[in-house]
Amino acid sequence: MPSTPTAITAEAPDPIARSRLIEAVRFDSHGLVPCIAQQHDTGEVLMMAWMNRAALAETLATGRVTYWSRSREALWRKGDTSGQVQHLVDLRLDCDGDTLLALVDQTGVACHTGRRSCFYRALRAGELAELTQPDADPEQLYGR
Amino acid sequence: MPSTPTAITAEAPDPIARSRLIEAVRFDSHGLVPCIAQQHDTGEVLMMAWMNRAALAETLATGRVTYWSRSREALWRKGDTSGQVQHLVDLRLDCDGDTLLALVDQTGVACHTGRRSCFYRALRAGELAELTQPDADPEQLYGR
Repeated sequence: MPSTPTAITAEAPDPIARSRLIEAVRFDSHGLVPCIAQQHDTGEVLMMAWMNRAALAETLATGRVTYWSRSREALWRKGDTSGQVQHLVDLRLDCDGDTLLALVDQTGVACHTGRRSCFYRALRAGELAELTQPDADPEQLYGR
Repeated sequence: MPSTPTAITAEAPDPIARSRLIEAVRFDSHGLVPCIAQQHDTGEVLMMAWMNRAALAETLATGRVTYWSRSREALWRKGDTSGQVQHLVDLRLDCDGDTLLALVDQTGVACHTGRRSCFYRALRAGELAELTQPDADPEQLYGR
């Protein structure tokens, strides 16, 4: 039976279990692994970002999805600035261990543009079009 | 309205439209961009692999999803060996242009282990468990 977007919430893993998963991940030469975030109940792919070992460990320990920001070179606890947090429902590892799929419960919007999903651009009528409009005002999410 | 896993099939893009999308992609320092493959109607995340410019151009021109195999350093027209092809339904680009989401119609299984999805490993009862069993025999898919 294929895995479905509707996840069964896994138990909060203990430190030994967490280390079992972390040790199975093949981080790249920069110490990073791509992580796809998918809304657990609707199946919507929200975003893709990167984790290092510390971000993955924190995600598993806290249940709050935490990435590594390559631009800021810092841990990025999703939603700390915007309030748009991702609660971890289940974390899946792929066959060769070099990509993660986080089934999450996304508060509000995942995209910094205020859209639910980052994947809103596609070709329509020969042009690169925006398929969705923002649900939230980025200035309100990030401004001060 | 957020984008949903149920895609509207886009028209087959002409060469000018294809180049508009390709030019909007920010390939990494290796000339690659990660591409998530999602079954268009069920929302299931099947796999993640990489495309270079040629793979992306071929995907858009043919409607058959084609990746760049980093291990074989060659174009990888998904399903050429196994028959498990991916027909492109729609290709989405994310907000900052560095990740693709391919909505596909997957024939058979996406994973080289014979499973529908590559994301079949997760923590269960403190162990890294396999959530699904193969639907197809890899020997039959790849053997000779």
